[in-house]
Amino acid sequence: MQNNISNFTYFNPTKVVFGKNQISALDQLIPSNKKVLITYGGGSVKKFGTLDKVKQSLGDRVYGEFGGIEANPTFETAMKAVELVKKEGYDFLLAVGGGSVIDATKFIVAAAEFEGNPINIFGSGIGTSEPIKSALPFGTILTLPATGSEMNAGSVITFKEKQAKVSFGSEKVFPVFSILEPELTYTLPKRQLANGVIDAFVHIMEQYLTFPVGAMVQDRFSEGLLQTLIEIGPDVIDETNKDYNLRANFMWTATNALNGTLSPGVPQDWASHDLGHEITALYHIDHARTLSIVLPALLTIRKNEKHDKLLQYAERVWQIAEGTDEEKVTGAIEKTKEFFARLGAPTSFKDIDLGEEVIDILVAQLEKHKKIALSERKDQTIEISRKIYQAAL
Amino acid sequence: MQNNISNFTYFNPTKVVFGKNQISALDQLIPSNKKVLITYGGGSVKKFGTLDKVKQSLGDRVYGEFGGIEANPTFETAMKAVELVKKEGYDFLLAVGGGSVIDATKFIVAAAEFEGNPINIFGSGIGTSEPIKSALPFGTILTLPATGSEMNAGSVITFKEKQAKVSFGSEKVFPVFSILEPELTYTLPKRQLANGVIDAFVHIMEQYLTFPVGAMVQDRFSEGLLQTLIEIGPDVIDETNKDYNLRANFMWTATNALNGTLSPGVPQDWASHDLGHEITALYHIDHARTLSIVLPALLTIRKNEKHDKLLQYAERVWQIAEGTDEEKVTGAIEKTKEFFARLGAPTSFKDIDLGEEVIDILVAQLEKHKKIALSERKDQTIEISRKIYQAAL
Repeated sequence: MQNNISNFTYFNPTKVVFGKNQISALDQLIPSNKKVLITYGGGSVKKFGTLDKVKQSLGDRVYGEFGGIEANPTFETAMKAVELVKKEGYDFLLAVGGGSVIDATKFIVAAAEFEGNPINIFGSGIGTSEPIKSALPFGTILTLPATGSEMNAGSVITFKEKQAKVSFGSEKVFPVFSILEPELTYTLPKRQLANGVIDAFVHIMEQYLTFPVGAMVQDRFSEGLLQTLIEIGPDVIDETNKDYNLRANFMWTATNALNGTLSPGVPQDWASHDLGHEITALYHIDHARTLSIVLPALLTIRKNEKHDKLLQYAERVWQIAEGTDEEKVTGAIEKTKEFFARLGAPTSFKDIDLGEEVIDILVAQLEKHKKIALSERKDQTIEISRKIYQAAL
Repeated sequence: MQNNISNFTYFNPTKVVFGKNQISALDQLIPSNKKVLITYGGGSVKKFGTLDKVKQSLGDRVYGEFGGIEANPTFETAMKAVELVKKEGYDFLLAVGGGSVIDATKFIVAAAEFEGNPINIFGSGIGTSEPIKSALPFGTILTLPATGSEMNAGSVITFKEKQAKVSFGSEKVFPVFSILEPELTYTLPKRQLANGVIDAFVHIMEQYLTFPVGAMVQDRFSEGLLQTLIEIGPDVIDETNKDYNLRANFMWTATNALNGTLSPGVPQDWASHDLGHEITALYHIDHARTLSIVLPALLTIRKNEKHDKLLQYAERVWQIAEGTDEEKVTGAIEKTKEFFARLGAPTSFKDIDLGEEVIDILVAQLEKHKKIALSERKDQTIEISRKIYQAAL
């Protein structure tokens, strides 16, 4: 029976502290006896003064810093932080940044307490996928709404030499708290804002655009978030528009897109992510910009399998009331593509100057990473994935 | 500035275990060394075998029972359980029932650890409203979807002699876990099912139907839940309809109606509850049936103050596209009333055989309980409350 809501467990203990001037709450949020390691990325948190505010709010606590976490955070970099944590005895981590910094920090807190080689936290042909028994506590200060990592227990780490992006998840790596200040997004450039909108949009689609199981609440919540992104997306990417509510709605949408609100008891796809990760790993394309290329192609190729949900998506999210079912479905896919294009994102390989030559290479990577039975029904074979890449040319 | 999303903290650590045959998970959810007190109500959990299943799943744990918690749980009854807990040294409570049993259990776990007289957990002219510093851990097995108490930190207790219903809340009284088995609702009579639908509906309205602050996600989530209840309500109250998804959607909607999902950063009303509680306390009318009487009258009297949100409610929830704004607003209130009536609930005092004679008495109770500045703007005076009661005649 595919058409019943499945049994599920919902659990999310992360405390979200949302609004204006919330960094000052750090003093209440982190126990005063903790030795804190602040993790961050390329330096914009220094440039825009966020790091200074954080340090001030830490008061008398002893703290250190670990910067330089990359946009697709690598195992190699994260392991350097793990060594530092062990050597210096840090017992609380504070991630200041976007999804990459937070994902890396999740790995660091788990690896620091892991018995044996931390590479075995991963599966997917990389490690032996052993359970995480404990992790150091950590909090986050989010600077880039996109991944939802600030309120979930998942992480994606890149293995440079192996040209692989691999995820892991564990209840032990929920952030203890996450501070969400919409005003921290005011310094973001257009491209990162657009990436955030697309990333959140596709997160929702991976949990929504599958086959119907009659989960009315989850469907309505997904549709509400998609409608919100469609409504605000074009304004969000205007970097000069510093409307508080606009950025607050963007931030809260991106968090809810992947914090467990949409997924209880429903099937999930994630094939757009699987296919996109290979493009990022080989050609260093921004994660979101691989999704804007793959998703419309995937929906086109998988139109029959996803028919019922595509029709619901057309009618409820895009308000397409006219035409045959087939026309509605095609129209909704077309509108999705136009939405991504309007955000300045690529929607084909051609848009990122790649051509037919990449197809065989990407397909080989899928095989290597055992991505041979993808999607909500595990029926997306290598041959179907090839067709999707081809449809994206 | 009323039109910005307010700062908020979102925190909800309750683990929800949802689906078929989940009572068996108790063995994993309660530490094996705990001495468990099972709390329940009038005996339907015995009659339908739920209690037996619970006891089986507790395995070798030592447990006791405390039954007889009333539909509007009283301080007096709950205090008997507090004495039992202290005397026998129970260190984990398990509430098996609906909102009343769960609310009472929240008070019991807090009172058992409270220094001084537990009456001071309450404010509202009853006690001194002192903070709860600790509480015993407890879990719930929900048998009646309605109040959301299974996934929040609030509770309403009735003081019989004082004819008052008083609420308290504390992060310390979140359930550690709640087991939600939709099939447990199959034995509920029509009236309790209808009460559950109405209770959930009005919980959403208290958080949604105020004034707009531009909180797009919270609005969409509220609208999605309201639409779901409108769609399923008439089928839910058919006690012979044992469709699993139908009951699962009902259960999950009622939980989300009051678990913190809808309220972050938005104004809240709760005046329908304030006015309804007085009716229950004096005339012993089911909680939900006071709400179905008060809410339509309140929306009518407060039409101007709530105009913008009423219009949004009309257009998005009831899909009223035709007419002037005024006609849409009036139409939406009318449809709300019809919806309650269709569920077999009263929508006026006349429907419960009460008349003008109760108005002065109810108004006096409001004054006595200091309910003199109600609603999202704290501008609902006693005189406005009187008008609302009168409009409900």
